[in-house]
Amino acid sequence: MHNPQLNAHGELQHLLSLDGLPREILTAILDTAEPFTEVAEREIKKLPILRGKSIFNLFFENSTRTRTTFEIAAKRLSADVINLNVATSSTNKGETLLDTVDNLCAMQADMFVVRHASSGAPYLIAEHLHNTRRHDIHVINAGDGRHAHPTQGLLDMYTIRHYKQDFTGLVVAIVGDVLHSRVARSQIAALTTLGVPEVRVIGPKTLMPTDLNKLGVRVFHDMREGLRDVDVVMMLRLQNERMSGPLLPSGQEFFKVWGLTPEKLAVARPDAIVMHPGPMNRGVEIDSAVADGTQAVILPQVTFGIAVRMAVMSMLGSN
Amino acid sequence: MHNPQLNAHGELQHLLSLDGLPREILTAILDTAEPFTEVAEREIKKLPILRGKSIFNLFFENSTRTRTTFEIAAKRLSADVINLNVATSSTNKGETLLDTVDNLCAMQADMFVVRHASSGAPYLIAEHLHNTRRHDIHVINAGDGRHAHPTQGLLDMYTIRHYKQDFTGLVVAIVGDVLHSRVARSQIAALTTLGVPEVRVIGPKTLMPTDLNKLGVRVFHDMREGLRDVDVVMMLRLQNERMSGPLLPSGQEFFKVWGLTPEKLAVARPDAIVMHPGPMNRGVEIDSAVADGTQAVILPQVTFGIAVRMAVMSMLGSN
Amino acid sequence: MHNPQLNAHGELQHLLSLDGLPREILTAILDTAEPFTEVAEREIKKLPILRGKSIFNLFFENSTRTRTTFEIAAKRLSADVINLNVATSSTNKGETLLDTVDNLCAMQADMFVVRHASSGAPYLIAEHLHNTRRHDIHVINAGDGRHAHPTQGLLDMYTIRHYKQDFTGLVVAIVGDVLHSRVARSQIAALTTLGVPEVRVIGPKTLMPTDLNKLGVRVFHDMREGLRDVDVVMMLRLQNERMSGPLLPSGQEFFKVWGLTPEKLAVARPDAIVMHPGPMNRGVEIDSAVADGTQAVILPQVTFGIAVRMAVMSMLGSN
Repeated sequence: MHNPQLNAHGELQHLLSLDGLPREILTAILDTAEPFTEVAEREIKKLPILRGKSIFNLFFENSTRTRTTFEIAAKRLSADVINLNVATSSTNKGETLLDTVDNLCAMQADMFVVRHASSGAPYLIAEHLHNTRRHDIHVINAGDGRHAHPTQGLLDMYTIRHYKQDFTGLVVAIVGDVLHSRVARSQIAALTTLGVPEVRVIGPKTLMPTDLNKLGVRVFHDMREGLRDVDVVMMLRLQNERMSGPLLPSGQEFFKVWGLTPEKLAVARPDAIVMHPGPMNRGVEIDSAVADGTQAVILPQVTFGIAVRMAVMSMLGSN
Repeated sequence: MHNPQLNAHGELQHLLSLDGLPREILTAILDTAEPFTEVAEREIKKLPILRGKSIFNLFFENSTRTRTTFEIAAKRLSADVINLNVATSSTNKGETLLDTVDNLCAMQADMFVVRHASSGAPYLIAEHLHNTRRHDIHVINAGDGRHAHPTQGLLDMYTIRHYKQDFTGLVVAIVGDVLHSRVARSQIAALTTLGVPEVRVIGPKTLMPTDLNKLGVRVFHDMREGLRDVDVVMMLRLQNERMSGPLLPSGQEFFKVWGLTPEKLAVARPDAIVMHPGPMNRGVEIDSAVADGTQAVILPQVTFGIAVRMAVMSMLGSN
Repeated sequence: MHNPQLNAHGELQHLLSLDGLPREILTAILDTAEPFTEVAEREIKKLPILRGKSIFNLFFENSTRTRTTFEIAAKRLSADVINLNVATSSTNKGETLLDTVDNLCAMQADMFVVRHASSGAPYLIAEHLHNTRRHDIHVINAGDGRHAHPTQGLLDMYTIRHYKQDFTGLVVAIVGDVLHSRVARSQIAALTTLGVPEVRVIGPKTLMPTDLNKLGVRVFHDMREGLRDVDVVMMLRLQNERMSGPLLPSGQEFFKVWGLTPEKLAVARPDAIVMHPGPMNRGVEIDSAVADGTQAVILPQVTFGIAVRMAVMSMLGSN
């Protein structure tokens, strides 16, 4: 079957989802990212790798933070970056998504970074590029609906590898609102592919998807049970804005049961690291004592995120 | 009489309207654009022509699409681009248009790309620059009210010349809402200047300006009659958002009579090309079968549009 | 006591307020700005001083005009500029100001240009950078609440020095809504530090802060008295949008008493210069005859403002 993320030579053509990417590609991205972390330490944080390339940040859903990370990554690779907040643009005038894409292709775009509230929108664009034989244009999914957020998943893997070196002996727990989280899906796919033997998912029944068994994870509905002896704790953001209906008690009540406090963290391994994709809701899913504590690697995640996005962009740009 | 678009040496000082521009200037812009279409094909799509220049996208009316084309053109010429969405800016604080312009001039602007809902605003700015002796600063009209959209007109001419080589034997039809169209006015001016012997205008009486006779065009109120044996069909966008009052039936009814379908297109010459300034209202002014068909040159128009804008900017930058 | 604006070597670490900056630093900034005014006259208005640096325009309060001046200054120094309109960003999602800052630091920011409606926000950020030992990151206050707008104060000083050479013999009047003006506080601090022997403040009692005596200025409630024989008139913008309650009559009535007309200006010295931070309310705080007259240096202020911001950025970038 045709894998829309790979080109005819098996190289990365688009980054749409970590689900379905072979381990070699994931590892190649992480390896490529390594030297880019050093670029950021230099006096002149700039490489000519994508000079003269036109990268479009195509945000159908507003996200200043994610857009910023891609904008920085692209500028450090010397690309020309054009920000399109399409929510307020010509799609308003009745133009379809694919007409917008066709137009930007006609402007000789080299790469689209796509954020969309609908799951699958970046796939639709990649498929359209394939059908119109624009094999020179690449798509990066910057978050689509509840589906995937692959660069977040990759920076998480980079962070784990950085602190734990090897994936094959780890117990990793993902905690919180898995149901509404595109981040969790990308994480589970990547952890599994990279050989993590035990992936746990911890959260209330109301915030768990029904298809979890298929993903090969262990499900816990008790924090202390789930966190026992884990090497890595990956907190999820409580996606209040995406929830409809009364699935949830108040933030305070959520915190009492599901918030990561020093007490709950104490049952994990003493050298366990704590991760969070941000932005954090302090006092809801995470206690400030943990967020600012010695086990947190939340800010290094952000730093590695720039390097990982530079890696993805430079690989796509050369494929 | 002083032509505000030309400097003392008869060179392009501002691009405000195609009306009143001599044929030599129009042709010079099209000729200058030719090599820029090749730049876009290169690995590094960048030329140092406007390096160190400050270009302001001064958009008093929102238009992500048009703004994007100018931003790309300017960045490919290595200019510094500053986007000002002035609808939400200091004019809100009671500052006048010309105070805003004076301020940007004082910041050593080199070029203004101006979009404004009021016809004549770019003229007002050009005149003010003339009166304040800022002959080093250039204005490009990116669409003013119902008046003009000269770079759109120029890219249309580029497209026609590209596909038909010579203007002097052509029959060209402009179809749709001419009354509210700044694009149509720019097109008629350019086609006439470049020597097209027969320019037709096709549309309902309610959407026709009263001064059409003066422009030297033939008016048709029947699609099949007007399209017979034409070489070029230039569709207009139905400007719903600009219309006031009940001039129009619904989009569906409009389509039945004025929408370009393969059946209606069949009366044109077999090698006729179909153009549209975008964004298209599929199923209103144009059938998808035509928009995506072999005669459509709508996406090449977009590509040529970048080259034409690079040409205009580079000419102004050297005058 | 620790001065948060200076580093351990007594060099500029952050620009938060002109209050508390030694005269040598103020003078060093003005001296550094001098050659940058020439850069703006060049064919290629660009210097490689901040190449590869990432500067974030962190605007928690909207101000296209101020943001634009910093963006131009940074681009002319070859920095990468990222605009963050944080009013509509992740702080909406419940993230705190300092979490946002931590995140941008983790993205290897080099400089923050901060605009905030709350007085003291840039101090809070600078203090946080100090506490987290990020001595490589610099903060520029681009206006915080009613507190300070130091680059405006500096460009005003540059303008005065440009036209009057020496500060030590001058009588300078600040006119208007002092109560709500962050500009006035920066001006008074700088004028005093630079040795201006007589600083006057002119305005209605309702728009005067109560702590003026402490600042060493002379207060006038009559325009003609206050303007008599002054060398410099610094008009303030009437901050309607910031006023609450009925402190003020209508704009027209304000103009009658406090608007600067040629008649009122006539009591100043014949070579007095007139300044305004912009955007002007013509017919409210200033008559067009004065704003456009020969004594006005309002547009040169804007030009010098770019040079002064380039100076501040380049000094911070090398400290």
